[in-house]
Amino acid sequence: MATGYFFSHRHILGIDHLSVDDIDHILTTAESFKEISFRPIKKVPTLRGNTIINLFFEPSTRTRLSFEIAAKRMSADTFSISTSTSSATKGETLIDTARNITAMQPDIIVIRHSFSGAPHMLTRYVNAAVINAGDGTHEHPSQALLDMLTVREHKGRLDGLKVAIIGDILHSRVAHSDILGFTRMGSQVFVYGPSTLIPPDLDSLGATVCKSLKEAVQDADVVMTLRIQKERQDDPLLPSFREYARFYGVNREVASWAKPDGLIMHPGPINRGIELMPDVADGPQSVILDQVTNGVAVRMALLYLVMGNS
Amino acid sequence: MATGYFFSHRHILGIDHLSVDDIDHILTTAESFKEISFRPIKKVPTLRGNTIINLFFEPSTRTRLSFEIAAKRMSADTFSISTSTSSATKGETLIDTARNITAMQPDIIVIRHSFSGAPHMLTRYVNAAVINAGDGTHEHPSQALLDMLTVREHKGRLDGLKVAIIGDILHSRVAHSDILGFTRMGSQVFVYGPSTLIPPDLDSLGATVCKSLKEAVQDADVVMTLRIQKERQDDPLLPSFREYARFYGVNREVASWAKPDGLIMHPGPINRGIELMPDVADGPQSVILDQVTNGVAVRMALLYLVMGNS
Amino acid sequence: MATGYFFSHRHILGIDHLSVDDIDHILTTAESFKEISFRPIKKVPTLRGNTIINLFFEPSTRTRLSFEIAAKRMSADTFSISTSTSSATKGETLIDTARNITAMQPDIIVIRHSFSGAPHMLTRYVNAAVINAGDGTHEHPSQALLDMLTVREHKGRLDGLKVAIIGDILHSRVAHSDILGFTRMGSQVFVYGPSTLIPPDLDSLGATVCKSLKEAVQDADVVMTLRIQKERQDDPLLPSFREYARFYGVNREVASWAKPDGLIMHPGPINRGIELMPDVADGPQSVILDQVTNGVAVRMALLYLVMGNS
Repeated sequence: MATGYFFSHRHILGIDHLSVDDIDHILTTAESFKEISFRPIKKVPTLRGNTIINLFFEPSTRTRLSFEIAAKRMSADTFSISTSTSSATKGETLIDTARNITAMQPDIIVIRHSFSGAPHMLTRYVNAAVINAGDGTHEHPSQALLDMLTVREHKGRLDGLKVAIIGDILHSRVAHSDILGFTRMGSQVFVYGPSTLIPPDLDSLGATVCKSLKEAVQDADVVMTLRIQKERQDDPLLPSFREYARFYGVNREVASWAKPDGLIMHPGPINRGIELMPDVADGPQSVILDQVTNGVAVRMALLYLVMGNS
Repeated sequence: MATGYFFSHRHILGIDHLSVDDIDHILTTAESFKEISFRPIKKVPTLRGNTIINLFFEPSTRTRLSFEIAAKRMSADTFSISTSTSSATKGETLIDTARNITAMQPDIIVIRHSFSGAPHMLTRYVNAAVINAGDGTHEHPSQALLDMLTVREHKGRLDGLKVAIIGDILHSRVAHSDILGFTRMGSQVFVYGPSTLIPPDLDSLGATVCKSLKEAVQDADVVMTLRIQKERQDDPLLPSFREYARFYGVNREVASWAKPDGLIMHPGPINRGIELMPDVADGPQSVILDQVTNGVAVRMALLYLVMGNS
Repeated sequence: MATGYFFSHRHILGIDHLSVDDIDHILTTAESFKEISFRPIKKVPTLRGNTIINLFFEPSTRTRLSFEIAAKRMSADTFSISTSTSSATKGETLIDTARNITAMQPDIIVIRHSFSGAPHMLTRYVNAAVINAGDGTHEHPSQALLDMLTVREHKGRLDGLKVAIIGDILHSRVAHSDILGFTRMGSQVFVYGPSTLIPPDLDSLGATVCKSLKEAVQDADVVMTLRIQKERQDDPLLPSFREYARFYGVNREVASWAKPDGLIMHPGPINRGIELMPDVADGPQSVILDQVTNGVAVRMALLYLVMGNS
């Protein structure tokens, strides 16, 4: 890391805003927090008396739980607001909600919203630090950071790795953040999925669009499958589940194309038998549960860093 | 305040039960707690080990959040029960719910219920202190107290002020509590709204019903607009939103009728463009966000006082 | 209790797994914790820094609240996940949910699920201690333990008592756990209900099926009525509510058949006027609210004991 580095971000809106040094520092901070979750007393007083509001405009169990556990293990006070975007009238309500919440003096707002850019807009109306927990099809930075932490732990580095991302790239904020993060850290990212679900501008992000599943997975250090969104089953862009599983699902044969020590990853929750077969999800190459464990550590690090600690 | 005064209320059911000295004491206590929310460590041990149950039979995000934040900043343990009145069979269930909850030894129950008088009934069945967070069309005392605190902060006093309340007075527990509170503290309250939404007995509460918006707002120290309840859109008592905005909405011209330093207030959430125009809501006279900030302070004071502190 | 006894259970899946010494030890531990809820500061540091996840696949207000209060009075950090079984696809999702949650290093998972055996299955996939908060029609051990604690407090013993259980035995996990518990502790259990709702194998559990309500209740030390599940109103196995109240409801006359100091119990929430008449529910023999109070104490004991304390 560059001499004299210090973490200067007040908000975590996306991987796009983070430098190589920033990502390195977040991952190293997360590593140092990880062991707290393995102590008998899983709690440090670091954020005692801080108010953290989880403002979720989209349903989420896992990400919300991960942020809540991270916050309480740092001794912060957490509050959850779950609401549906449908009940909100355009963007105006988000602004009023933001202003109201900020008038209660929170230190950090963790926001998930179906509109891309909502967290960024929020920063203009609140005094609190804002962490993006997923905005539309835009970014999901804490997911990409936990993915990078997991790979770095297993491979010792991120640069020079081949990372394959398989599935619906077009609608996936996870894919977007991962492509930004892994390429920035020196990995080469190869993507593959139904051609209707590959956005046209991937080259500009530094990712290589592959013509076959084999081309993407061959000799990969990391094979990341994306969740197929079942609620979008009737979308004409999407093949049937049976077809998807056959042509895009990662089964044992597909996994064997990767390096022998290649990692199998998935952001969860898995549709077993569709995008990922159970024997691969639960096989020796899978690090899917490490991702979950690292999610808590990464979120502890983010909460810590945006509060101005370093 | 009278010599030898002490706060003797076990419950906060309505402004109607509070004397001038009580209100003064609550506001002064709230002022002293307010700075806690501006500290880096927003937490005092005052209510550590106390159990506070938020029992909300009507949906609420803001009031519930405000009470929860107040409780946790006092180090209390909080528990939220949200339920819909529709699933409850008449009043009996409230009694059984109350008895069951009290058998778990809570110290304070904060209740919101669609039946006027529900908090009062609750006091007969529980050992805990009861705080009314809004009951039917009856009272919402913590809202009126935060309104009074906000005005007192800005004007230095409550007596001798002209307070205009505009909107659906008939269905508004906020209006009812505010009328009781401000008149008790020596303000003169003027109300205006659709004639179908003005209750007949307002004179007996000490409020003056005006014949025009101008009469109500002219030279006012405080202009408070009420939220129009959108879910009651088909109510024949209610004009269309367009009509409402035109004849009862507070726009810049209306606001200019008030004193130059007159305050614009709203209990939130605002229907922008209906009862209050955005440029007024966000203008220099608006103290709407101060109301939210003071809400936490007032609720900290109420939790503190009903626990027998003074 | 046998010399050298120590509590060896990592999980609390059902009364069936607990010996006489285990039950004695849990009840005695619960008794010692009970007074904490009556202190001004209702909090001990025993489980500070422990992570407890309430994983409720069935709606529950009371049991969830009781576990949450128990956990926070022991200073644990609690997290609630409420989800409906309907949104889960078969058993697989429970396993994936379990694995994901365990990857966040919880110490205890409290689970309620509509599938009998779900908590047992959970133990194979998690590192955490598992407490069954009700699984299908199988067991609800913490309810039976609080029932036994309540009877033991009032009667000084459990052996040699006559316990009558009235109602829908077939679908009641409470009845099942109570029959197992009270018979194990030396009580004699007599059951009565609509013949369609009496399972065929009750004798093997040590319970006596009665031919009349009078036979069951006559000279009983304990009369426990079960909740009729109103949502199952159209079930052809179930008589109409009017008929149920007439032939199976416990009214003052029925209660008079028990011993003069016989206890009236109900797991709550009561359908007043159906399975239990209000004057009996609120009468001098009723210990229904003691059950609720003891619920918190029993759950504190269970959380304490599964953490390896003794």
